[in-house]
Amino acid sequence: MVVSRLSLYLRELRQLVREGRSTVSSSQLGKMLGVTDAQVRKDLAYFGHFGHPGIGYRCDELIAEIRRILGTDRQWIVTMIGVGNMGRALLRYKGFAEQGFRIVAAFDTDPRIIGTKIEGIPVYNPDQLRDVIRQQRIQLGMITVPAPQAQHAADQLVAAGIAGIVNFAPVTLSLPEKVGLVGVDLTTELEQLAFSVANRNSKR
Amino acid sequence: MVVSRLSLYLRELRQLVREGRSTVSSSQLGKMLGVTDAQVRKDLAYFGHFGHPGIGYRCDELIAEIRRILGTDRQWIVTMIGVGNMGRALLRYKGFAEQGFRIVAAFDTDPRIIGTKIEGIPVYNPDQLRDVIRQQRIQLGMITVPAPQAQHAADQLVAAGIAGIVNFAPVTLSLPEKVGLVGVDLTTELEQLAFSVANRNSKR
Repeated sequence: MVVSRLSLYLRELRQLVREGRSTVSSSQLGKMLGVTDAQVRKDLAYFGHFGHPGIGYRCDELIAEIRRILGTDRQWIVTMIGVGNMGRALLRYKGFAEQGFRIVAAFDTDPRIIGTKIEGIPVYNPDQLRDVIRQQRIQLGMITVPAPQAQHAADQLVAAGIAGIVNFAPVTLSLPEKVGLVGVDLTTELEQLAFSVANRNSKR
Repeated sequence: MVVSRLSLYLRELRQLVREGRSTVSSSQLGKMLGVTDAQVRKDLAYFGHFGHPGIGYRCDELIAEIRRILGTDRQWIVTMIGVGNMGRALLRYKGFAEQGFRIVAAFDTDPRIIGTKIEGIPVYNPDQLRDVIRQQRIQLGMITVPAPQAQHAADQLVAAGIAGIVNFAPVTLSLPEKVGLVGVDLTTELEQLAFSVANRNSKR
C-alpha cells in the first residue's frame, strides 16, 4: 500500500470522529476515499485490522494504529532555516504543533532578527546551526530560504546530522539517501490549478 | 506528458536564469530533473520545442512557452475563505502575487475582523461572497477554514461561479467536475516525512 493512502485514511477517520462517530464500515470509508470497499478491507488487513462483525472498524483504534505506523504518535523536534515571508507565515501557523511537530529554533542571516524571538521561536545565527541542532536534539528541518540558498541550507542541515527535511523552496534538492525529504511547492500547486482551469475554459 | 512535469521544467529553468544562464542542453535539464536526456527531448518536442543545434534550448523561450501552456502568463484574481492561523500566514506570503495570483478579498465569520484589512486585503462577511466574487471577477478561491467548515465554503464558492479551488483544509472536498481543484495538506506532507524518517531509523 502506498504510504500517502495511510494519511488519507487518517484524515477521513479524524473527520468522522469530529462528527461524533466512533465506528465506520469499509464501504463508508471507501466512499470517502473514492476506492472500493474491497480495497479498504485489503488495505486495513495489510496492517492487521479486520473490523468487528456487525460494528465495522473502530475509528480511535484505527487512528492510533495509523499514527504509530506513520511515526506521528511521538513528538518531532524541528528547526526552520530562513525567517523571511514564507518562514514567518509558517511560524504563525499552529497546525504543526498540533500534529506533534514542535519548532524549537529558527536560523536567519539577517542581523536585525538574530537574537530575537519570532512567534515565540528564538532566531539564531547560522554559525550556530550545528551546536543548536545537537544541543536541542533537533531531528527535522524546514527550509524556507529563497531558492538560490536552499541547497546550501540543506547541506548544512545534513552536515549537522538532521534526519529529514521539508523543503518549501521551489528547487529540487540533492541529498544523501539516508536523509528523508518532502517538498511543498505552493507555486507548483497553483500552476496545476491554473492549467486545469485554463484548459477547461478553452475547451468550451 | 504529465502536467506536473511542466512545473518541474519551469522550476529548473528559472533556477538556471537566476544563475545567469541563457541556454541549456537536454542532458543538463535531464540531470536536474532526474530523467534521461531522451525523455527531455521527447517532452519538449511534445509542445513544439526542438532545441537549436550547437546551442541547446533557450531558457527564456522555454519559460514563456511553459507559462503560456500552464496559464500562468496571465493574472488570476483570487479570494481567500477563512482568515485564521493558516489564512493569515498565507496572506503574509508574497509568493502568490509574484506568480500572478492576486488575492483581492478575504471572507471570515469573525465580526472582529469583518470590515478590516489584514495584510492589506479587505475582510468581508460571508453573506457578501456572491456579490464580491461577481463584482471583482474573482476566478479562484483558497479555502483556509477549519476542516469541518471546508465543504460548506467550497459549496458557496461553487454557487458563486468560481472556476477553481485550492484547498488547504485537511479534508477531501466533493466538487462538480467543472471546478478545478488542488489540495495542499501540510499535515499529510509532514506525516510522509515522519514515516520515511521513522522507518529508516528502525531499519538500522
